[in-house]
Amino acid sequence: MGAAPATPRRPPEGNTTVRLGLLGCGNVGSALVALLDEQRTAITARTGLHLEVARVGVADVTKPRPVTLADGVLTADLDRVVEDAAVDVVVEVMGGLEPAGRLVLAALGAGKPVVTGNKELLAARSPELLDAAAKAGVDLLFEAAVAGAIPLVRPLRESLAGDRLERIVGIVNGTTNFILTRMSESGQSFEEALAEAQSLGYAERDPTADVEGFDAAAKAAIIASVAFGVDVRADDVHREGITGLSVDDIAMAERLGYTVKLLAVAEAVGDEIAVRVHPAMVPHDHPLAAVREAFNAVFVEGAAAGELMFYGRGAGGRPTASAVLGDVIDAATNLRQGSSWGLAGLVPARIRPIDELESQYYLTVDVLDRPGVLEKVAAATARHRVSIRQMEQLGMGDEARLVLVTHMARERDVQATLDDLRQLDVVDRVGTFLRVIGPERT
Amino acid sequence: MGAAPATPRRPPEGNTTVRLGLLGCGNVGSALVALLDEQRTAITARTGLHLEVARVGVADVTKPRPVTLADGVLTADLDRVVEDAAVDVVVEVMGGLEPAGRLVLAALGAGKPVVTGNKELLAARSPELLDAAAKAGVDLLFEAAVAGAIPLVRPLRESLAGDRLERIVGIVNGTTNFILTRMSESGQSFEEALAEAQSLGYAERDPTADVEGFDAAAKAAIIASVAFGVDVRADDVHREGITGLSVDDIAMAERLGYTVKLLAVAEAVGDEIAVRVHPAMVPHDHPLAAVREAFNAVFVEGAAAGELMFYGRGAGGRPTASAVLGDVIDAATNLRQGSSWGLAGLVPARIRPIDELESQYYLTVDVLDRPGVLEKVAAATARHRVSIRQMEQLGMGDEARLVLVTHMARERDVQATLDDLRQLDVVDRVGTFLRVIGPERT
Repeated sequence: MGAAPATPRRPPEGNTTVRLGLLGCGNVGSALVALLDEQRTAITARTGLHLEVARVGVADVTKPRPVTLADGVLTADLDRVVEDAAVDVVVEVMGGLEPAGRLVLAALGAGKPVVTGNKELLAARSPELLDAAAKAGVDLLFEAAVAGAIPLVRPLRESLAGDRLERIVGIVNGTTNFILTRMSESGQSFEEALAEAQSLGYAERDPTADVEGFDAAAKAAIIASVAFGVDVRADDVHREGITGLSVDDIAMAERLGYTVKLLAVAEAVGDEIAVRVHPAMVPHDHPLAAVREAFNAVFVEGAAAGELMFYGRGAGGRPTASAVLGDVIDAATNLRQGSSWGLAGLVPARIRPIDELESQYYLTVDVLDRPGVLEKVAAATARHRVSIRQMEQLGMGDEARLVLVTHMARERDVQATLDDLRQLDVVDRVGTFLRVIGPERT
Repeated sequence: MGAAPATPRRPPEGNTTVRLGLLGCGNVGSALVALLDEQRTAITARTGLHLEVARVGVADVTKPRPVTLADGVLTADLDRVVEDAAVDVVVEVMGGLEPAGRLVLAALGAGKPVVTGNKELLAARSPELLDAAAKAGVDLLFEAAVAGAIPLVRPLRESLAGDRLERIVGIVNGTTNFILTRMSESGQSFEEALAEAQSLGYAERDPTADVEGFDAAAKAAIIASVAFGVDVRADDVHREGITGLSVDDIAMAERLGYTVKLLAVAEAVGDEIAVRVHPAMVPHDHPLAAVREAFNAVFVEGAAAGELMFYGRGAGGRPTASAVLGDVIDAATNLRQGSSWGLAGLVPARIRPIDELESQYYLTVDVLDRPGVLEKVAAATARHRVSIRQMEQLGMGDEARLVLVTHMARERDVQATLDDLRQLDVVDRVGTFLRVIGPERT
């Protein structure tokens, strides 16, 4: 090495106190304070770090909280948490775009490492935040923002740093996975399953962010950024939710050997990045098919590593606090050593339009039950070079439902086929449209 | 922080060349050289590191290899690879206890970080090797030694550094998982499945290390060391292989709702560490049950994170090379920054004897098919406070086979029950004995 230090520097002897400033003390923040109280002694023994909660900034200091904080720690002055010389590392667990964004930038500007679990903020402003961290030479860590307790960012960045990542396919929203599990295993309707998710605290009263795929799209953007080093924002993600799925579709998928999952996909195709969120049919023997209830899992394909999967809890106070605390220890260790991740900046991404996707497709078409109908449908698919792998016809009185699974086809050809089918007088309606994962590749 | 540096140090501008010395150039070493050639430019772009293979030490320099090395790189002088001033980081992929052990210690002694995939060496001498690394203030990294391409060591050490790990249960041997998958899904005998594994290159001609659990035991020792920070060696691991399993047992397990897997288990019980390798019955809805063929997976239970699982390829040249290269980049980055992992040393472990294990058990007992037999068997179990959860009786001509699944019981009580059963005149033989994972906890 050109200029290797003669004697590599050892960590300082003895313990080092690192003081944390928390922005937010809700579900995750409270769990973090409690976990730190439980684990403080063990962490010191293992790492030589003594972690103290020095300041906790919240909107309302009078609100009751499940954790006890020392006098003077709690404050409504959020800027003070960031500026206070008594704070070494800032932990942002308040969520939302503002004032979180301004405070994170202020902390980085003051040379303080930041740990955050704020997916919304990262999916909107990653490049700017990472640049600010690089400029200050400090860490911006966000393991908790992607898949809760599941270690994903660190494995992608570090363990797989020598590999070429090809594709990441994740179940990254526990609410929708819970709903789909109930619809699949108990035959519940979407509305029934959503109501159960809400009663269990898995879904918000307004479930839009989850069921329409906004939450998953933010995570897909962060995953694409980390995996491919490119600037991908939530707005770049093609997004479809699960509200259009019927129990019939899910039962038919099961009968054909598939489980329906809401997937976040990020892949490198040539020099383009494809990134999308949509429900898809996953073969029963694919590891993602076995991910049930509110669990998350992220399936990674590396050129050398092959297929990997990371599974666990993607939400919840304690699981998320576990991921945040891992990042805090990393940031504190780096701060003590005077080092940092020093990531390269994100480069602009060429986003591949969804039209260009090559996948298999599952389609249902309700038609009049009379001779010659199948021929007309087949002619429409053939015209657009969409080849049918599997077809079933279900009688429904005067009507019939055609269930089609295509071979690999291009999305724009399938969409053109659907447009043509809608024009046919024998077609009553074009129903469900789902992408299918493997055995041919999506 | 007591003495935080005023301005955290940034990584140096521009690229840094780091020169690697490889010990061994077989399956993994060749794959590493090839992967590095593929990825060199991308790695430099991402990390600023230019990685060069400066020396490759092998036993026989005349042997043909699938990779091309520059003139003068290949040498039979292994000590020279370690000592050469032109080598910054040593990569040990030769395997075996010696001369690997001596060379790794020499490299660390010379202040050079070492990356190794040598599970046998680590399971025999971890504390000594880690102490040497700590003394030199350099890294000893070994992600590839535990589960091939699967990121496990780094997540356990870093991502979960703030959590309290309770239990790790892994399928860490691909050969035996392949054999068990074939026995379970195709009804092949152990011998047939082993022969197929050998023909596919998944099993050695002498399969002892795999089928008798020695390979898994070495990995269990390393997992326990990493997860709990304790000195656990391969010899500390209670070990049972899969050679005693019959297709009948596996079919019966399937019928009862379980898949049979060879598991490596490491858990903290009070202030003791329990660590063992044995076949076990895993409920069909447990994520480990879906791990098929030669894949590996490690299931981790953290106090805060909850259940996590890491899945992927546990062997093979390219997957293993991916893990090694991730470690190389980490070690090179630390070397450039003058930092290192700086792990605390391993503390002595109190190993919990297998007698103390609390688990559910699956037992088969062949008995004479006559009245009163069941009463005698039930009396023997009751005498040792072993409570039966499930019983099936299968007719076999004059004999019957009793299949019993117990509630949670203590291993020593179950063993005492088996001893008593062997004394009964109505008992022909006590057959299979398998531990059962959940729904009650093992």
